[in-house]
Amino acid sequence: MSFRFELQKTDGSARAGLIHTDHGVVETPVFLPIGTQGTVKSIEPRELEEIGAQIVLGNTYHLSLRPGEEILRKAGGLHRFVGWKKPILTDSGGFQIFSLEGLRDVSEEGVRFQSHIDGSPQFFSPERVIDLERAIGADIMMVLDECTPNPCAYEYATESVERTLRWAERCKTHFLERPPEYEHAQALFGIGQGSTYKDLREQCLGKLVEMGFAGYAIGGLAVGETANEMYDITEFCAERLPSEKPRYLMGVGTPENLLESIDRGCDMFDCVLPTRNGRNGMAFTSRGKVTLKNSIFKEDFRPLDPGCSCYTCQNFGRAYLRYLFQAKEILGMQLLTLHNLSFYLSFMRSARGAIIEARFASWKNATLARLHAEPVDQHD
Amino acid sequence: MSFRFELQKTDGSARAGLIHTDHGVVETPVFLPIGTQGTVKSIEPRELEEIGAQIVLGNTYHLSLRPGEEILRKAGGLHRFVGWKKPILTDSGGFQIFSLEGLRDVSEEGVRFQSHIDGSPQFFSPERVIDLERAIGADIMMVLDECTPNPCAYEYATESVERTLRWAERCKTHFLERPPEYEHAQALFGIGQGSTYKDLREQCLGKLVEMGFAGYAIGGLAVGETANEMYDITEFCAERLPSEKPRYLMGVGTPENLLESIDRGCDMFDCVLPTRNGRNGMAFTSRGKVTLKNSIFKEDFRPLDPGCSCYTCQNFGRAYLRYLFQAKEILGMQLLTLHNLSFYLSFMRSARGAIIEARFASWKNATLARLHAEPVDQHD
Repeated sequence: MSFRFELQKTDGSARAGLIHTDHGVVETPVFLPIGTQGTVKSIEPRELEEIGAQIVLGNTYHLSLRPGEEILRKAGGLHRFVGWKKPILTDSGGFQIFSLEGLRDVSEEGVRFQSHIDGSPQFFSPERVIDLERAIGADIMMVLDECTPNPCAYEYATESVERTLRWAERCKTHFLERPPEYEHAQALFGIGQGSTYKDLREQCLGKLVEMGFAGYAIGGLAVGETANEMYDITEFCAERLPSEKPRYLMGVGTPENLLESIDRGCDMFDCVLPTRNGRNGMAFTSRGKVTLKNSIFKEDFRPLDPGCSCYTCQNFGRAYLRYLFQAKEILGMQLLTLHNLSFYLSFMRSARGAIIEARFASWKNATLARLHAEPVDQHD
Repeated sequence: MSFRFELQKTDGSARAGLIHTDHGVVETPVFLPIGTQGTVKSIEPRELEEIGAQIVLGNTYHLSLRPGEEILRKAGGLHRFVGWKKPILTDSGGFQIFSLEGLRDVSEEGVRFQSHIDGSPQFFSPERVIDLERAIGADIMMVLDECTPNPCAYEYATESVERTLRWAERCKTHFLERPPEYEHAQALFGIGQGSTYKDLREQCLGKLVEMGFAGYAIGGLAVGETANEMYDITEFCAERLPSEKPRYLMGVGTPENLLESIDRGCDMFDCVLPTRNGRNGMAFTSRGKVTLKNSIFKEDFRPLDPGCSCYTCQNFGRAYLRYLFQAKEILGMQLLTLHNLSFYLSFMRSARGAIIEARFASWKNATLARLHAEPVDQHD
């Protein structure tokens, strides 16, 4: 049983590496498709493999409410329950619980909250989250943290960082006490908070690194701050993290955000954009975003992204995809989500290739220029 | 350019044959997955091929309203628009229009009705339907008929059969005058009506056969009559149809209905059951129907139908499928629709194999016994 990060190459601050897990190797930089409830919405696991997904994200909060830990345990863990053989990372659910404004009650012990499904009372403590993540069996588990909103008063951010650190310590202690339930290793990542305050960020990461985790996440970003603030904090944090551990920037972001964050030394990313936008008729392409409801596509039978090798682009035209959304056909969501994820994953493979070949800066500039060129819907 | 039916084998009244089209050969008896709006709901075309779909059904009424004939023409026909390379059959839309109670006005010339999408006035005449079906480019086109409800007064059924015959004649005339728009042959099928009145059924089919069509459909069944009435009329009609042409029983039915209708000499079938029920959490299996919301499946990790080779049964358990429906995840609809269609298609292949090997009666009896055995949800 093993979990190990291997830093293969750096190019400026950008990094290429390998995360070794008992469910296979993940090449970084990597994007994690979001499978909150144990399914990447509208995508079959075999399609995820087809487009090169290496690891998916599940959510402890959602999975604990439904199907619940007993069913997951009886199934032999989430991998078996959902039919996914590659690595899984579970977020602790802290972000979700702290979004339940008014429905939660935070104490030193943990968070009381109401289920969004049936209103039933729930309690998450650091220990409880670890127990749940053991039942889920994700290859990478995240500690329970408090994700502060933006803007956030300095005093509250300070208290929150202190609690997040005490909870991280309790998570780690319980993680060491409680062995895995299945035949594969699980690693625990710490999460740094501190809002946009660099002194708090530094303090938080310093303590987490002292405690020692298998990887470190930068949390509490992409919550409303400007892109420049986000890049600034990301860079500040990445510089304070040990080079031999993976760095996970949570909840980020657009293709441009990914480029800038890879350039600042981050390795792992997750975001709802490719999946959620795919269900809403919005496509990511090498030439920027495309809104399929635009009537310019009505009789446009060309592929969404002519250079894309995904099933959608190889077999269907823009007019048909637009029509599927107009007719409210589920297939539209399926095909567009598949393309968007394929685009994100291919984008990350290109970034990795550029880092390995020591041409990340020029690749990044060319890619940004293309993303910012005239959009597809006003072009060729 | 060619369309041809080849009767290969009979076993009792059951028939095995081949429908040759320019988009490939269809082995009968055959089930047509329903792709009303140019997509079999929640299923990718490559998945249809994977499970052995040979021909799909589109609807002239729906496709004429959206995307509309101009877009279909510019796309080069429905096959190209939707990315489906095998045969397509289009229903005329008569059934849908005559279901628009109160929103339609029937005259000798045709039917005025309002679009269910935007309320805009529409007019379907026999000639207009042929024009639309030429623009769609289906391999098999259906005439415009009047589908009477059940029960139906004898007088109304008589008038309706007479109009259906005059419309069939006009369809055929216009079909011969107006050549195909694309590089493949299109065949025109007649549709027999007459409600549950055998004299009207006989008169209608007799006249249609005199006119001469590439195939004949039995319409106006599965609209509320009993199964025995349906079998009785089906048998009566099939006996009056020429053996050298394919026989299409429209809108039928359950696996049991299919068995009984194959046994009475029908070759082609379509029905919403596998797709619609799949989206509602109901599965067809070799042991009968299964309702996934049944709590008995909560911790049942076995495949839906252990003998089934579809992607769903090979990779997911009942508990996960049930969970997907509980969590309202689209993937549940996808996986269950895929299984249901796979079951129907495999069922038809088995029927065909039994006919070819002259063991249809024993296969039918064994299959019925299994379908009627203790249901999966109370068993093993």
